[in-house]
Amino acid sequence: MFMHSKELQYHAKPDRPDPIMARRLQEILGGQWGEMSVMNMYLFQGWNARGNEKYKDLLLDTATEEIGHVEMIATMISQLLEGAPLEAQEKAVDSDPALAAVMGGMNPQHAIVSGLGAAPRDSNGNPWTSNYIVSSGNILADMRMNVTAESQGRLQVARLYEMTEDKGIRDMLGFLLARDTQHQLQWIEAIKELEEKEGIVVPGQVPEKYEVSDVSHVLYNFSEGEHSKKVVDGKTAKDGKEFIYKAKPEVMGEKPVLKPVTKDVYNTSAMD
Amino acid sequence: MFMHSKELQYHAKPDRPDPIMARRLQEILGGQWGEMSVMNMYLFQGWNARGNEKYKDLLLDTATEEIGHVEMIATMISQLLEGAPLEAQEKAVDSDPALAAVMGGMNPQHAIVSGLGAAPRDSNGNPWTSNYIVSSGNILADMRMNVTAESQGRLQVARLYEMTEDKGIRDMLGFLLARDTQHQLQWIEAIKELEEKEGIVVPGQVPEKYEVSDVSHVLYNFSEGEHSKKVVDGKTAKDGKEFIYKAKPEVMGEKPVLKPVTKDVYNTSAMD
Amino acid sequence: MFMHSKELQYHAKPDRPDPIMARRLQEILGGQWGEMSVMNMYLFQGWNARGNEKYKDLLLDTATEEIGHVEMIATMISQLLEGAPLEAQEKAVDSDPALAAVMGGMNPQHAIVSGLGAAPRDSNGNPWTSNYIVSSGNILADMRMNVTAESQGRLQVARLYEMTEDKGIRDMLGFLLARDTQHQLQWIEAIKELEEKEGIVVPGQVPEKYEVSDVSHVLYNFSEGEHSKKVVDGKTAKDGKEFIYKAKPEVMGEKPVLKPVTKDVYNTSAMD
Amino acid sequence: MFMHSKELQYHAKPDRPDPIMARRLQEILGGQWGEMSVMNMYLFQGWNARGNEKYKDLLLDTATEEIGHVEMIATMISQLLEGAPLEAQEKAVDSDPALAAVMGGMNPQHAIVSGLGAAPRDSNGNPWTSNYIVSSGNILADMRMNVTAESQGRLQVARLYEMTEDKGIRDMLGFLLARDTQHQLQWIEAIKELEEKEGIVVPGQVPEKYEVSDVSHVLYNFSEGEHSKKVVDGKTAKDGKEFIYKAKPEVMGEKPVLKPVTKDVYNTSAMD
Amino acid sequence: MFMHSKELQYHAKPDRPDPIMARRLQEILGGQWGEMSVMNMYLFQGWNARGNEKYKDLLLDTATEEIGHVEMIATMISQLLEGAPLEAQEKAVDSDPALAAVMGGMNPQHAIVSGLGAAPRDSNGNPWTSNYIVSSGNILADMRMNVTAESQGRLQVARLYEMTEDKGIRDMLGFLLARDTQHQLQWIEAIKELEEKEGIVVPGQVPEKYEVSDVSHVLYNFSEGEHSKKVVDGKTAKDGKEFIYKAKPEVMGEKPVLKPVTKDVYNTSAMD
Amino acid sequence: MFMHSKELQYHAKPDRPDPIMARRLQEILGGQWGEMSVMNMYLFQGWNARGNEKYKDLLLDTATEEIGHVEMIATMISQLLEGAPLEAQEKAVDSDPALAAVMGGMNPQHAIVSGLGAAPRDSNGNPWTSNYIVSSGNILADMRMNVTAESQGRLQVARLYEMTEDKGIRDMLGFLLARDTQHQLQWIEAIKELEEKEGIVVPGQVPEKYEVSDVSHVLYNFSEGEHSKKVVDGKTAKDGKEFIYKAKPEVMGEKPVLKPVTKDVYNTSAMD
Repeated sequence: MFMHSKELQYHAKPDRPDPIMARRLQEILGGQWGEMSVMNMYLFQGWNARGNEKYKDLLLDTATEEIGHVEMIATMISQLLEGAPLEAQEKAVDSDPALAAVMGGMNPQHAIVSGLGAAPRDSNGNPWTSNYIVSSGNILADMRMNVTAESQGRLQVARLYEMTEDKGIRDMLGFLLARDTQHQLQWIEAIKELEEKEGIVVPGQVPEKYEVSDVSHVLYNFSEGEHSKKVVDGKTAKDGKEFIYKAKPEVMGEKPVLKPVTKDVYNTSAMD
Repeated sequence: MFMHSKELQYHAKPDRPDPIMARRLQEILGGQWGEMSVMNMYLFQGWNARGNEKYKDLLLDTATEEIGHVEMIATMISQLLEGAPLEAQEKAVDSDPALAAVMGGMNPQHAIVSGLGAAPRDSNGNPWTSNYIVSSGNILADMRMNVTAESQGRLQVARLYEMTEDKGIRDMLGFLLARDTQHQLQWIEAIKELEEKEGIVVPGQVPEKYEVSDVSHVLYNFSEGEHSKKVVDGKTAKDGKEFIYKAKPEVMGEKPVLKPVTKDVYNTSAMD
Repeated sequence: MFMHSKELQYHAKPDRPDPIMARRLQEILGGQWGEMSVMNMYLFQGWNARGNEKYKDLLLDTATEEIGHVEMIATMISQLLEGAPLEAQEKAVDSDPALAAVMGGMNPQHAIVSGLGAAPRDSNGNPWTSNYIVSSGNILADMRMNVTAESQGRLQVARLYEMTEDKGIRDMLGFLLARDTQHQLQWIEAIKELEEKEGIVVPGQVPEKYEVSDVSHVLYNFSEGEHSKKVVDGKTAKDGKEFIYKAKPEVMGEKPVLKPVTKDVYNTSAMD
Repeated sequence: MFMHSKELQYHAKPDRPDPIMARRLQEILGGQWGEMSVMNMYLFQGWNARGNEKYKDLLLDTATEEIGHVEMIATMISQLLEGAPLEAQEKAVDSDPALAAVMGGMNPQHAIVSGLGAAPRDSNGNPWTSNYIVSSGNILADMRMNVTAESQGRLQVARLYEMTEDKGIRDMLGFLLARDTQHQLQWIEAIKELEEKEGIVVPGQVPEKYEVSDVSHVLYNFSEGEHSKKVVDGKTAKDGKEFIYKAKPEVMGEKPVLKPVTKDVYNTSAMD
Repeated sequence: MFMHSKELQYHAKPDRPDPIMARRLQEILGGQWGEMSVMNMYLFQGWNARGNEKYKDLLLDTATEEIGHVEMIATMISQLLEGAPLEAQEKAVDSDPALAAVMGGMNPQHAIVSGLGAAPRDSNGNPWTSNYIVSSGNILADMRMNVTAESQGRLQVARLYEMTEDKGIRDMLGFLLARDTQHQLQWIEAIKELEEKEGIVVPGQVPEKYEVSDVSHVLYNFSEGEHSKKVVDGKTAKDGKEFIYKAKPEVMGEKPVLKPVTKDVYNTSAMD
Repeated sequence: MFMHSKELQYHAKPDRPDPIMARRLQEILGGQWGEMSVMNMYLFQGWNARGNEKYKDLLLDTATEEIGHVEMIATMISQLLEGAPLEAQEKAVDSDPALAAVMGGMNPQHAIVSGLGAAPRDSNGNPWTSNYIVSSGNILADMRMNVTAESQGRLQVARLYEMTEDKGIRDMLGFLLARDTQHQLQWIEAIKELEEKEGIVVPGQVPEKYEVSDVSHVLYNFSEGEHSKKVVDGKTAKDGKEFIYKAKPEVMGEKPVLKPVTKDVYNTSAMD
């Protein structure tokens, strides 16, 4: 069960309206790596965790914080849209090309659909979709996704920071940079613990006999040139076995032969 | 530029048709973490890499291999569909409930849409979408996604392995398990190198003054109970700084106040 | 069965081309609340209606009209695109920043994909999807959706009206405003009738014993502060029962405990 | 800012596992009218509300409750999946057709993708998308969507109630039925107030001269037969004006004529 | 403007309910190649046609017929769902495995979401999307899509015909087979005319100097083996020029070199 | 199995950066008719081909070439983005409206999400989806799709050619124009062969008695006016039978009557 406080976790007030920046900030609200993604992903991972109380709790702590981050960015966007220019474009073009450029660059749905409010969408207006997230039941696999999400998310926040000089926006983004630092580090910490218990290769506990083991540590060179060799050659993989580099990939399979199917499928008859 | 060999990289031949298993294998072909995802993701990351030749090459080597994995699984699925039962369900129900169960559980689009061939879709028939992948320009951020993809992918392969006793399917899945082992380990190797150069927290090089630094290593307890404390308390984060645990989250922001917008937006008038 | 007249239901001719306005009008053609949505929604509701002839007829009357509205807006957009500037952007930028702003703001797919014709998409180029509509078999539930669709749709038309001074566009939008007025009112009329027969709370006829009745008229205060109290406090709900306001939500459930699953799922082992 | 309690708002514990019912319950978790939709919709409407404190508060109260409903249903689904049959289908078919039917009917992604946990998807595995929701800035328009969402949602809960005899599931569904009753009634209450202030037809305040007023209260008969006449004929619309019924729709527009576009668009040349 | 007749264009009445067949028929209603696709595609192509009256008319004639086909299939599906088994699955499993198989195989959304009515979705429940259709402004290009759509659609109808023995369903499918025959043939007729005027290669009128003409009639052999040679070798292409077969593809480009971007993008620094 | 060469198939180097053109070129990379579509479509058709070695080989040859086309366009886009203006929009607006126009018109995700690299998306940022492609098992049906894809694709390339004066971009587009010429012609060649063997109407081999044959060659006039008559009247269809034109469509079906469903579906009760 959840509760709501009226105050924001941190300041989210721009110095002045800026509808272009409002559009850009949608990316970290409703984009693939935006706050809606981490909020929903951590919620589902937390709810689905079976045992493993400390991770379950950590996931739900962080998820709950992220709902508040969605709130902050949505609030910021609504303020950036105050005073957005909506008049006839041809009027703007005639009198003020700079204004026309702003109108051309802003998101038309901010005016037509959301009435100058934030939308659950990315900077190109794509709807948020749960395709962006995962909850697999394997916490180590999911923690790897979590550190990815915080890395991609912080990367986008840093880029947005460089795109504006508005002190209010920068203050909020600076807060998000810091929280993403913490979140990256805590998931890395969890990964370290989990790798110690479950092994490096996910999922652990797959019986060794399942694997075609002679190809489990081989890098095949499928491109011309051998630059990639440097990454693995002569090195011990993190699971303690040696990497092998093969300059030429082997064909181990056959040319596939598919049988024709029965007439009632109406495929093209086999011929040649 | 790419070239194609007629032979498969590895065997992909089931012992016998099994339309239920054909449906399930679609997940690792066209699902979120299927081979289409890693193939397309590594291609884009490789093509977009700026400098960093050894990683670019490693990405394109692996991407090129993955095209061949899509090929193997597609081939497997087509064979599993040979002889799929397509007749009238009511006939099956009357004479053979077990057959009816198979018909109920198979993917109807395998018969109606793809003519007993593989589809670029997951096990529930959702189309593959590039929402599943990322290429951010930050190779460390992307390598974290890559190790995630190989972890989630290998997890699904392991689960599928347990769901069948067909030796041919298991042989192919055992090969994929092994290749996913290698791919996890090579991306982990790249991450290790990149973290040494770029720092633990992605993206590196963000000026320190950007961050609201007093919250960059704090775990806030947003749930009741303090199980999550164990993950970080008294520990040094991987970037060398100490974690701080706060049992009660602070409000640092204000109650947001949004201004009414002009009449031409036709929002509800402010009232109370 | 349907028939087509060559004439439009109403005028749809702009005074002059305007590719920015063409992009914006896509919202009421192929957006969530555009004419494609009401057309398809009323068609499906009408076709699926079981008995209830006067509503079935009303739905199909209105649906059939809406096909003609899609036709009008599509025609308008095609004309607004005549003479759209397609040349090299750098040329425009050098010679005419105002023209460049128009080129930057127009939808590139109008030129590249649809050859200066209308697209079944919204103002950001998102494809129309049947996710936007509903036909539930419960006509009262659906009529509530219908009055929503006409409200959201008319809101967007009003906003677009304010964004242009083109008399031709305004004439068509004024017609749509009026038709949306009628459609709102007729669905409200149907709702009134249906509520009298089926009850206020949808679906009617749910046996009373199904409901956990002591929470069926309670507003819980899940936020700090009690502003929301004013909406319900001391009032009789439209079904004749009293609203109850509780300033503090109750926990009625337990802390959930999920069991570990069998090994063959390869979830993280339970630990703590 | 949000906080989380470990206890659920209400019981969510089934009597016994049932993977088919787990699949069905996904509809009210991640479907068009599921709890994820109302949770996200009310959050955005609340955050975007400009002034109108009591509605803003009511929206955020209810949104916060809905996060807890998502939690309850996710928890229920995870328990229903405990002990789901995952073995080889052919084995089940041979020994136990009934078991095979369950395997055929359950969602394969529950095993392969989410490790026997709940997914942010509907009962057919479609991802949740923000296409399902709206926040328009016009609170009356949005309240109409909200009462729709609670009507469609309660309808689905009632249908699911009939599909199971599990007392634990029914207890939770009974709670949801009751809460949906309250939510329908509170939105209806808000609509009543808002209609008094803003007018029946949304958006209010559209200048009368904008509308082509002679068609604003006319029902056109676009189908053969005149059943629909009964809904409006001789009645006063809720805005106080008389409905007019026209048995034959008028053509008010022209046959559209589109001009050929310039050669560089490569459309088919005009000919005939 | 459109008008509606109450009668269906053709019979759409099954001999008896069959919820499995109802699910399957959704494919030709709301699937990629279903009637919603051709209806919407021909409408947009017709509305967007600039000049070319006879094709515009043919497109709108056929589009209008297709609305009636959507109506027929929707009507059929609603009848197939009458009497669908909705009770608790465990009850069915115990008493009647055959019934359980039907319940497992039917679409749960037919009961939960659409109340035993047709849905604007395919046989796996994917929403219809305008991604399925095209209107490019080039009528010859679009006619090729149209003949494709009628070919794929008729193929699916033929497969469905084989999957049932219900005389009522077969009668309707037989009608659709025949209409798809006509539609294929009429689009082929239009293509013939258009190719005579516009040329074989679409779009015609591209200045010859634009093309890198030495590769415009060359088949490169990118696979091992030379089976493909037979399709073109020694043949004159339909535009009158000779095909050339090259057994080994040429590299004509360079190894691409991308420059590092400025620091404010936070990409990985170039290194090696 | 596939192999990769480091060199591109053809030059892909622009004369100078141009972020607007980068956005536009996304259409032929990740749009409905872009290179990702043909690459994935031909791969699946090739892999799914049962027998029919020369077509299977031709499909895989062409598919393999298309992977290289995706590579070329991705490389081009990355170079066009070098030096894209990312600074604060308000700064640009003040000092340089032309620059502001470029910033308004470029794709914000090119900066925020992909770090100035190409994205697997179209020119409006829509993700690529496998909804764009088909592999039906009927090679003739699929070849018709293939010639459509090459026609639509070449049309878009030609339009883009006209939108730029950059010689490097034009050189690459000229190459693609030529390859699309070849691909159109080779699929047309295959169609000719297949039509000779399988018949004109797809799928061939449908027993004649299945069709309601008296409507299989009739054009019904569903619009007023008889322009469409010219396309077919007095002509022999390509399958050798005469077209029939009917100026007035016949009703052959009945007014549908749907039965009410059982109470547990909670549909609106039948009334009137």
